Amino acid sequence: MRDFSQDHSTLALNTATLGHNLEGHGAGWSPEQVIDACAERGYGGITFWRRELAGREVEIGARTRAAGLQVVGLCRTPFLTGPLALPSEPEIMDDFHRSIDEAAALGTDVLTIVTGGPEPGTKGVLESQKILADRVARAAGYAAERGVKLALEPLSPATAGNRTCIMTAADALNVCDAVDAPNVGIAIDVYHVWWDTTLAQTLATRGKGRILGFHLCDWLADTSDILLDRGMMGDGVADLKALRNAVESAGYSGLCEVEIFSANTWWLRPPEEVLDTIVTRFRSCC
Amino acid sequence: MRDFSQDHSTLALNTATLGHNLEGHGAGWSPEQVIDACAERGYGGITFWRRELAGREVEIGARTRAAGLQVVGLCRTPFLTGPLALPSEPEIMDDFHRSIDEAAALGTDVLTIVTGGPEPGTKGVLESQKILADRVARAAGYAAERGVKLALEPLSPATAGNRTCIMTAADALNVCDAVDAPNVGIAIDVYHVWWDTTLAQTLATRGKGRILGFHLCDWLADTSDILLDRGMMGDGVADLKALRNAVESAGYSGLCEVEIFSANTWWLRPPEEVLDTIVTRFRSCC
Repeated sequence: MRDFSQDHSTLALNTATLGHNLEGHGAGWSPEQVIDACAERGYGGITFWRRELAGREVEIGARTRAAGLQVVGLCRTPFLTGPLALPSEPEIMDDFHRSIDEAAALGTDVLTIVTGGPEPGTKGVLESQKILADRVARAAGYAAERGVKLALEPLSPATAGNRTCIMTAADALNVCDAVDAPNVGIAIDVYHVWWDTTLAQTLATRGKGRILGFHLCDWLADTSDILLDRGMMGDGVADLKALRNAVESAGYSGLCEVEIFSANTWWLRPPEEVLDTIVTRFRSCC
Repeated sequence: MRDFSQDHSTLALNTATLGHNLEGHGAGWSPEQVIDACAERGYGGITFWRRELAGREVEIGARTRAAGLQVVGLCRTPFLTGPLALPSEPEIMDDFHRSIDEAAALGTDVLTIVTGGPEPGTKGVLESQKILADRVARAAGYAAERGVKLALEPLSPATAGNRTCIMTAADALNVCDAVDAPNVGIAIDVYHVWWDTTLAQTLATRGKGRILGFHLCDWLADTSDILLDRGMMGDGVADLKALRNAVESAGYSGLCEVEIFSANTWWLRPPEEVLDTIVTRFRSCC
């Protein structure tokens, strides 16, 4: 397991962590300001969200690399299934392809998939997992031609009503198996999987070479909102070192991306303070 | 799999489903009124909560049986671990024993355990599962002498910060294995496990003879609150028939208990309407 206590060159920022401080809100930071602030602090990379790029994918990707940072990933495809997805399959697939184009233009090789929930009119998740696998399979070649890998991210069962139909690493790997394309893997976010006592075993037996991302935050004991009350590393109950050990034991050696949706705490703090705190916590708690 | 389409003699009410309509609130129904209303409608049994009994366990148990109903269970032990548990282990064990006494006085043979979350100062859930197993093991003999079985109920990972340290049937069975007492088993609540794609396999291989309760409700696609926004059967996305099939294939042949915490919908409706709706939905959706 890598030692981060004196080295945070593997630390990446997911821009969602600055939330209300991004363009149009709070401190109003542009992508360029985020890039500079991360570079100044020795971060290793950044993951952006599509809405921040607005047609400037090529420019922002180049600016990130020029600052010495990796473009770790792009969030995210549209929902591919479920009640929050676009109304028709052609619209879903069109936007899926657009997200792949944007990842390629940005110059990142990882595009995260948040799947969407059970299809309206179905019960349980298995039928939706089949629809998901079919849609991912149909876009996988298009992504491969553009050098983009697709990372299926399991989300907490708390969100399985409408935001996800894969709740565990095992679910995500089942869909990968069904898709059977070399550029489709999984992303592990500690917020979503910290409770899964079978995770290490699943990754050890089935995860080798298939983990495309590792996301950090913490699960607060008294979580008040399932989407927007994530904790800073060290403030919650997740066993972060054990989770990282599970991911690294399965061969993951990439950057560790901090993604904290926190509407009432971290999004309200000055972005400089948030970025500094992340560095400290990354070295001491992760 | 049993056919309930013309028969609801296996239907039980968990009194939590009447929520605000119970004594001191809303319609203000006493346990006796709940018993009569269930008996009139042909329910097979009732599960009570400790706070409703208030020293009248013997009387209410006898009244239930006299009305032709089973006393299916008692909710519940105190939290046995985690930040919401009583401050000291002696206090936890005292109240644990009191809950066993109350179940015995009520004349039910099933007492549900909601475990409580990770112990303060620990990370992850494994250490807390060990503490849980130890505390359950120390009370199991006391319960057995009084004819009471202890049902470990896994709760949704959404509540794993402070209310549970067992999130799946597999977790619950792991704790059962550690306890190794003949009167300790598990309860399966569809709200908490509907998303688990490994459930049927887990129960088939490890659940035989160990399922002490089966709880019904539904998971709403747009759930707004993880504790108090449960759906009526048929209104959500859980595959209720598949879940019951998994439980019955593992040998469960007991009553099916409807437990709907619903502060903004069902708790506000007249209790007669709620009880009638349950009968209809039980026959058509479960």
